[in-house]
Amino acid sequence: MTRLKNVYIFTGGTLTDEMLSYNNLDEGIIIGVDRGVDWLINHGITPDYFVGDFDSIDIVLLERIKKYYSNKVKIYPSEKDETDTELAMQLAISLKPQNIIIFGGTGSRLDHVIANVHILLQAERNDISSVIYGTNNRIRVLLSGKSKKIMKSHFSYVSIFPFTEVVAGVTLEGFKYPLVKGVMKIGFPYGVSNEIVEDNGTISLDTGILLIIESKD
Amino acid sequence: MTRLKNVYIFTGGTLTDEMLSYNNLDEGIIIGVDRGVDWLINHGITPDYFVGDFDSIDIVLLERIKKYYSNKVKIYPSEKDETDTELAMQLAISLKPQNIIIFGGTGSRLDHVIANVHILLQAERNDISSVIYGTNNRIRVLLSGKSKKIMKSHFSYVSIFPFTEVVAGVTLEGFKYPLVKGVMKIGFPYGVSNEIVEDNGTISLDTGILLIIESKD
Repeated sequence: MTRLKNVYIFTGGTLTDEMLSYNNLDEGIIIGVDRGVDWLINHGITPDYFVGDFDSIDIVLLERIKKYYSNKVKIYPSEKDETDTELAMQLAISLKPQNIIIFGGTGSRLDHVIANVHILLQAERNDISSVIYGTNNRIRVLLSGKSKKIMKSHFSYVSIFPFTEVVAGVTLEGFKYPLVKGVMKIGFPYGVSNEIVEDNGTISLDTGILLIIESKD
Repeated sequence: MTRLKNVYIFTGGTLTDEMLSYNNLDEGIIIGVDRGVDWLINHGITPDYFVGDFDSIDIVLLERIKKYYSNKVKIYPSEKDETDTELAMQLAISLKPQNIIIFGGTGSRLDHVIANVHILLQAERNDISSVIYGTNNRIRVLLSGKSKKIMKSHFSYVSIFPFTEVVAGVTLEGFKYPLVKGVMKIGFPYGVSNEIVEDNGTISLDTGILLIIESKD
């Protein structure tokens, strides 16, 4: 059996039309989360799954969804331990894809953004490559002993931060400021605003967890 | 000698007029950072110190500042290990105040936001209470064995996240969802969107470091 390639999660926060032109959107499974469902349907896309407490979705739309897609709708109470995006992530992980791409997930509510960053760990720990694709930022996490290749793109800056107290063996190749087996500790954000100078940059890590943020103004 | 009460850092990101009505702004020391200097001067406020590489400030303004405030201007090269806000934080710490309040510091560049969150640790480790006061978020960190009181305010939601791999002995009092000696681990953001139901909420912690984010829509 060929492993499913991509699951796309469209969640709250800022969603833009640009995200619809992402490669291979047609070939993946699409999960709409709460207000992301509204947004997808307004853009002529019916998600494969609908997840959320739907406390911020149009009630008429919700009734229509429940009627036509009853087997694809997962409604959760609004007071629960997990966020809606976390529930969507758990559904996505259960589909065992190679990649999970979260569109949206960033915006003015920093608490939601940080929660979404934590959720990336759940995918990576299941050996699924995952990314939050926001308007001004693309966010990944890198686990111990792993490496990631980042393509040079219109996200001009690549910053790395320790996501655990200490990260060690941080190696950056293809970057303006390369690094060999560096150590970083929380509280000292010296990995801000690096740039990829080759076609792509590779980040690898021996121990700890690294947060990788590509940004543009 | 009475200890200096407040140092205010006005930095890049989103700055709003509301921030000027903050209590006791007149009585504290004000540090302008790079574009924050522009913003302050446009609002009729001359900072006590000017910090940055000033790569994004009006050149005429910069020349005027250098002429009149030469002893208060700290210009750094634009390629350096520290961010401008970190240099301002180090200056603020050297003044040994009780509190450091960073205005701005949040915005669309998540890498800058995360860098600023890390920088808060430098103040707290020097026993200086510190906060990033953004437009939609107020951000603090809480060190091992410490507690913080958060006043109920127009920031409706209070979320907590582990900033180290594990945090233990997390106790929340005065909250809608209280907690006694809880344990949190990175990857599981179950502390999102709590609310203060008393006049104030108290958060205390035995081990690890906690990230506290108040948010509003």
